[in-house]
Amino acid sequence: MSEWPADSVGLVQPQQRHFDTPLMLACGIELPSYELVYECYGALNAERSNAILICHALSSDHHVAGYYEGESKPGWWEVYVGPGKAFDTNRFYIICANNIGGCSGSTGPTSQKPDGSEPYGPDFPPVRVRDWVHCQQQLMDVLGIEQWAAVVGSSLGGMQVLRWALEYPEAMRHGIVLASAMKLTAQNIAFNEIARRAITADPDFTNGRYLERGTMPNKGLAIARMIGHLTYMSDDLMALKFGRDLYEGSFERGQATDVRFQVESYLRHQGDKFADSFDANSYLLLTRALDYFDLAREYNDDPMQAFKRAQAEFLVVSFSSDWRFAPARSREMVRAMLGAGRRVSYAEINAPQGHDAFLLPVPRFDAVLRGYLQRVAAGARA
Amino acid sequence: MSEWPADSVGLVQPQQRHFDTPLMLACGIELPSYELVYECYGALNAERSNAILICHALSSDHHVAGYYEGESKPGWWEVYVGPGKAFDTNRFYIICANNIGGCSGSTGPTSQKPDGSEPYGPDFPPVRVRDWVHCQQQLMDVLGIEQWAAVVGSSLGGMQVLRWALEYPEAMRHGIVLASAMKLTAQNIAFNEIARRAITADPDFTNGRYLERGTMPNKGLAIARMIGHLTYMSDDLMALKFGRDLYEGSFERGQATDVRFQVESYLRHQGDKFADSFDANSYLLLTRALDYFDLAREYNDDPMQAFKRAQAEFLVVSFSSDWRFAPARSREMVRAMLGAGRRVSYAEINAPQGHDAFLLPVPRFDAVLRGYLQRVAAGARA
Repeated sequence: MSEWPADSVGLVQPQQRHFDTPLMLACGIELPSYELVYECYGALNAERSNAILICHALSSDHHVAGYYEGESKPGWWEVYVGPGKAFDTNRFYIICANNIGGCSGSTGPTSQKPDGSEPYGPDFPPVRVRDWVHCQQQLMDVLGIEQWAAVVGSSLGGMQVLRWALEYPEAMRHGIVLASAMKLTAQNIAFNEIARRAITADPDFTNGRYLERGTMPNKGLAIARMIGHLTYMSDDLMALKFGRDLYEGSFERGQATDVRFQVESYLRHQGDKFADSFDANSYLLLTRALDYFDLAREYNDDPMQAFKRAQAEFLVVSFSSDWRFAPARSREMVRAMLGAGRRVSYAEINAPQGHDAFLLPVPRFDAVLRGYLQRVAAGARA
Repeated sequence: MSEWPADSVGLVQPQQRHFDTPLMLACGIELPSYELVYECYGALNAERSNAILICHALSSDHHVAGYYEGESKPGWWEVYVGPGKAFDTNRFYIICANNIGGCSGSTGPTSQKPDGSEPYGPDFPPVRVRDWVHCQQQLMDVLGIEQWAAVVGSSLGGMQVLRWALEYPEAMRHGIVLASAMKLTAQNIAFNEIARRAITADPDFTNGRYLERGTMPNKGLAIARMIGHLTYMSDDLMALKFGRDLYEGSFERGQATDVRFQVESYLRHQGDKFADSFDANSYLLLTRALDYFDLAREYNDDPMQAFKRAQAEFLVVSFSSDWRFAPARSREMVRAMLGAGRRVSYAEINAPQGHDAFLLPVPRFDAVLRGYLQRVAAGARA
């Protein structure tokens, strides 16, 4: 970490935009109006050719880089976004919008219904990756951007990049897909389903009406997050980080006191912290969107056929120890892109951190991003 | 399956034995008396040299093979135990006892306290692998067996085999350790902890007093089992078995109905079925015993030093797709055994079924067992 550039975009403020044009969702339900909250870093050049859209992952948000007034924790991708960093804010104009259906500012289950009567809660319509891409495209119009230099995302964010490439092929020059997949495996869906069941089994969930009742399903949501968090780490990383170290108790013979391992205490803390800050209905909705995504569903289940619609060049990156979005899933994606005649760069980064590696300072990953973004910048004259 | 020997030990009945001698547990608490329920197949030879002890895994029990009157489902290891099968009941006298702390007949949290006042419930003392081995040794005495031809177990059962080899080195000629480990990894502990938290977060758990109150924490226990069951299967097996097949709903555009995948429905069913038949306090207790086991803890964390106490020969088997008890854990074990001068055979079976492979008909596994048991039989003149 010592050599990692420390420069930051510094103090930032989220922006908000109200959209009055109804949004027809993929499920057939119309959202009469909605808010998008987003952040921008850097400056749009005169040619309007240096804009990069970052699509965030499941429980993440628009606060990618920099600091909010009075807060010491930076945005979630501070290590890769900022002046002189891989996503160099001296060259690029970078935008990230919070996805609708979440709970970080854009319209979602905790928002009031349009008639102001009550929060949407469980009545918020199901959203799909495609709906987020449509929202991002609306915001793009408002910002006066005609073509993204690149659209980038990891995990569920990577799925948005892929959907962009098929829905608006001319609107992006590069797609950067990190630790992602063209669709989830059965095992992935199963983890999400257990997480959802932990939420709905919590009696405080009250069929999703907990906001009106003032009963928060924090226990269920904490368990859901513990499951998720556990699958974002690799076995090796956990062995390094926790091993079998004890948090309390002793294994001495003749001791009947409970023994608790560090890893248990850590996960409980992560779960509780998350439950205090995230909305349960949003978690249900977002994991469903993740499960339902299937890039090639409308292309006869043939991803090569799907990528024939795309026009962008791609960078695909996977991490060796990521068992939630395994390298094999990225390789499938790359094969389909190549088969469709796309230009693709692929890097499989040897890193022990599991799925979360994309969030952490991994020098080899940084080098791959920097190399590719040189090309993106050249094309954008950024 | 078609060529798998269909012969069975047929109708069987469990046996019960009451022990009045107090059992001093590793935690320092004394169990004043206890029951063991067990099953036997085959016949003890005149030399009393052909007895094999099977140690069962976490949520399993003493019903290894054959059928109960009026039931169509055989014991859990019917594929490997019976006349002409790998554990050939024509040659061996095979015994399996239900572990105390469980809920299948031997004394555990659902048993009445010795004063008959109420069930033990959460007051049942913590048990460790060592306690089970002591109970099995008591039963061995009762049955008039001085030395096991082999002690065999998979997963948590394999840990019992290892403990046997250190506690009673002269009482066994062979140890057969399947899909097991010398201790759990942090990741394993974490899965168990999330399962436990799902149970204790269920308000019907009522601090473990649900039996008296008649409120069963079935929702929590079902989630706990779903987590366990999921980790016993490999990603590949789940892809084969379920893929992204739908149970209900449709992905057609303009459809807001919920979509449920087959894998979700399957796991929910498994969870609910388990919750109807297993005790929540037992599940907490047994997963703790699994987490706490650490073969070499009393040997300066040096497994080689531990195995120097052992006298048995070993067969160790792992399965390529088992990510809960990965082959790497078995290889560590084998290295320590060899370093201690033990005779060891090791087989890493290429099988897609994950941890549960040891329960399923896997021809290569069957062949390995048969080969090794020839040697066991030769030594037992069975």
